[in-house]
Amino acid sequence: MNRTRSNEPDSLENDMDFVTEPEKSPGTVSRRGLIGLVTTTVASAAVGIGGFAIGGQLAGAATADPSNAGSSGAAPGADIDLTADIVEFDGLHQAGIATPAQTNVLLTSYDVAQSASRADLAAVMKAWTQAARAMTAGDAVEAGPDISTGSRPANLTITVGVGAGLVQRLGAQRPRALVDLPAFTGDQLDPARSGGDIVVQMCSDDPLILANADRVITRRAENTLTVRWQEQGFGSTGARSDGRTGRNLMGQLDGTNNVTTSQLATSGPIWVDERDPGWMAGGTYLVVRRIRMLLGDWERQNTAHQERVIGRTKDTGAPLGGTMESDYVDLEARNADGSLTIPADSHVRLAKPSSSSENMMRRGYSYRGAVLSDGTVDQGLLFISFQKDPTTSFIPVQQRLAAHDALSEFTVTTGSALFAILPGTPTASDWLGSALFA
Amino acid sequence: MNRTRSNEPDSLENDMDFVTEPEKSPGTVSRRGLIGLVTTTVASAAVGIGGFAIGGQLAGAATADPSNAGSSGAAPGADIDLTADIVEFDGLHQAGIATPAQTNVLLTSYDVAQSASRADLAAVMKAWTQAARAMTAGDAVEAGPDISTGSRPANLTITVGVGAGLVQRLGAQRPRALVDLPAFTGDQLDPARSGGDIVVQMCSDDPLILANADRVITRRAENTLTVRWQEQGFGSTGARSDGRTGRNLMGQLDGTNNVTTSQLATSGPIWVDERDPGWMAGGTYLVVRRIRMLLGDWERQNTAHQERVIGRTKDTGAPLGGTMESDYVDLEARNADGSLTIPADSHVRLAKPSSSSENMMRRGYSYRGAVLSDGTVDQGLLFISFQKDPTTSFIPVQQRLAAHDALSEFTVTTGSALFAILPGTPTASDWLGSALFA
Repeated sequence: MNRTRSNEPDSLENDMDFVTEPEKSPGTVSRRGLIGLVTTTVASAAVGIGGFAIGGQLAGAATADPSNAGSSGAAPGADIDLTADIVEFDGLHQAGIATPAQTNVLLTSYDVAQSASRADLAAVMKAWTQAARAMTAGDAVEAGPDISTGSRPANLTITVGVGAGLVQRLGAQRPRALVDLPAFTGDQLDPARSGGDIVVQMCSDDPLILANADRVITRRAENTLTVRWQEQGFGSTGARSDGRTGRNLMGQLDGTNNVTTSQLATSGPIWVDERDPGWMAGGTYLVVRRIRMLLGDWERQNTAHQERVIGRTKDTGAPLGGTMESDYVDLEARNADGSLTIPADSHVRLAKPSSSSENMMRRGYSYRGAVLSDGTVDQGLLFISFQKDPTTSFIPVQQRLAAHDALSEFTVTTGSALFAILPGTPTASDWLGSALFA
Repeated sequence: MNRTRSNEPDSLENDMDFVTEPEKSPGTVSRRGLIGLVTTTVASAAVGIGGFAIGGQLAGAATADPSNAGSSGAAPGADIDLTADIVEFDGLHQAGIATPAQTNVLLTSYDVAQSASRADLAAVMKAWTQAARAMTAGDAVEAGPDISTGSRPANLTITVGVGAGLVQRLGAQRPRALVDLPAFTGDQLDPARSGGDIVVQMCSDDPLILANADRVITRRAENTLTVRWQEQGFGSTGARSDGRTGRNLMGQLDGTNNVTTSQLATSGPIWVDERDPGWMAGGTYLVVRRIRMLLGDWERQNTAHQERVIGRTKDTGAPLGGTMESDYVDLEARNADGSLTIPADSHVRLAKPSSSSENMMRRGYSYRGAVLSDGTVDQGLLFISFQKDPTTSFIPVQQRLAAHDALSEFTVTTGSALFAILPGTPTASDWLGSALFA
């Protein structure tokens, strides 16, 4: 039920799991951080908490917080309660990034109406902040659709970002890292599933909670924003409940060797640094890729071939040559005949960061779309990654993968977007985007 | 957390809840029946079990069944374990009908290829039976995609039915009740989302389990069947876990006053009787309606108006004039000014069965589809009902609703289908459709 992690994030395989420890802000300990840490100890007792200075405050804080009763009362190793928990909205960073990944996601990209003014947009951001703060705490919102009445937030998080177009329209400084994503070999992008001015990522363990939040958020932006695209995704309820790494639709464990809890406790791999403009301090960058899997072709390969394509065994998720999911990915290892144990064109080899600047926090979901004209179902992976600088991480890694990855034969990317994720709201009087609109 | 039921099923509002007690077959007690009953007592202690002759056998059977450890070990009133349970595949009736409704559904309608022979179709039915029996028990299937490796079935059920076209093609007797659904006022049906030769309803509390089962079932039919349409739906994790009635996307409690456990224990409202051909003995009929909700219009109505349209209060679900969800729906009640308490054009009034022959077992889900050209999201209700005779139940009730229901202004039905649901497999050597193909 529990699992260990190595310290080498090594792949683009998408995250279905529960890396926690959002922020360790100097001198303060947010309620969100405490809840996340409690959840971690419940889900994955093998991840030591001794390294956290806040460890001593854990028991008291969790017990004092009735919202967290679902997990705080559980013994280590017990299941996560998928309905009872609350993830704190306010913090230096937005929730839904370094907080544990819930079972369901709804990602909506909006375009700004031509007629919308700067004041209109600021009003939307303020209204969203207020509504998101209420809904994530389990409070009703005024003029809500009442879909969620009687239900708990089930770890609802609402995370907001902006596209390059909106930043320019606002006359704010465009961050160097907020580039237009280059064309990648093999992409078959649908413009209607790509890009956008504003993104909202909503995650919860209860899909009905997302349906309610989506109505609230979309309605609060009426006449100012229009929906450009929306993607819903899912993970495994069982894996989430157990704290296991979940599988993707190809059957591989997906999310192994993600950014580690100790890395998340620093500003290292995710949060922007002083090279970014001031309005991004505490923010990060979100890459979304809608990756259709050609499952018929994939499933015609035998397991041994699938494992060579991925570079990991299918059953355990261990790197080839290893025995456990958490084993070190040894790119130098060779078979008795001298061939590379982890093949040259395997996904794991090519995705493994060549340096720490390539690290990303993966937090993706499976998706299921429409029946296509050939009778197959459009389904696959919503690749979602957060990183401090996509120009040194996602982009070079994806260029490597697009050129050489054996897995590319079995996937088609049809949607793609890059957003700047706004800083969090350190206090309940702050609003998302306040620095951007200042 | 618990709720009571009256004995008056009264509406077409779709079922999001957990009416249990599948079958009470003469002289035998299926493992499925026992598990269902245990789940009932856990979820809804207010539903007495004293009336069941098998009550005395409960504790022993449940304890002896390791698959049911998740709920059998829980005290009455405790949460349902959404990941651990197994619903028995074999039985006089198929599972997924009178067994508790899981959080997720995947409904797939297939067309039979022109080239497919009777033998091809029988081979598919045998392969499906074998695969479904294995997957619902948590066993791996040969040449599976391995998406679900390491996860529990999470109450997976797989339920198979046939359309009128296939029955005629096979030269079997077409049941009188397997009609072509008439046109209903207001329907805007998309043929590509309607009808079909074969339907498979798969339900589970873990969407990844459904993804795996879908691949297995679809692949076992390759070259014989093609996917015509597929719909995925969701309920509330929280309501499911608590044993509460869930809400639909309009915010109303949906599934109140469904067919009761005592009715389900008889052949009454669901299972066909001797008027049906022999190949249907133990079967039922499935109606699927894809009902888009015009949520923008709906949400512009104030709560009082919404309640008059539905005929129930939004918060509690009580019928107008009542105080509790389970209160009797009194169609004669009048306000002080002499007007009807439950308005003449309210949904509840029109949907209430005028006689027991109109009873249906509702088992629907919310759905979320594509972004439409007007920028709204195609979302609403997958109405799913099971009934012994749609010509005396669904069809007359829907005609009444289509003509007069105040709710119609806020919905558009875009998909519609009627299927004959095959009898169950009483023993593990039987296969679905064996009588149809005999």
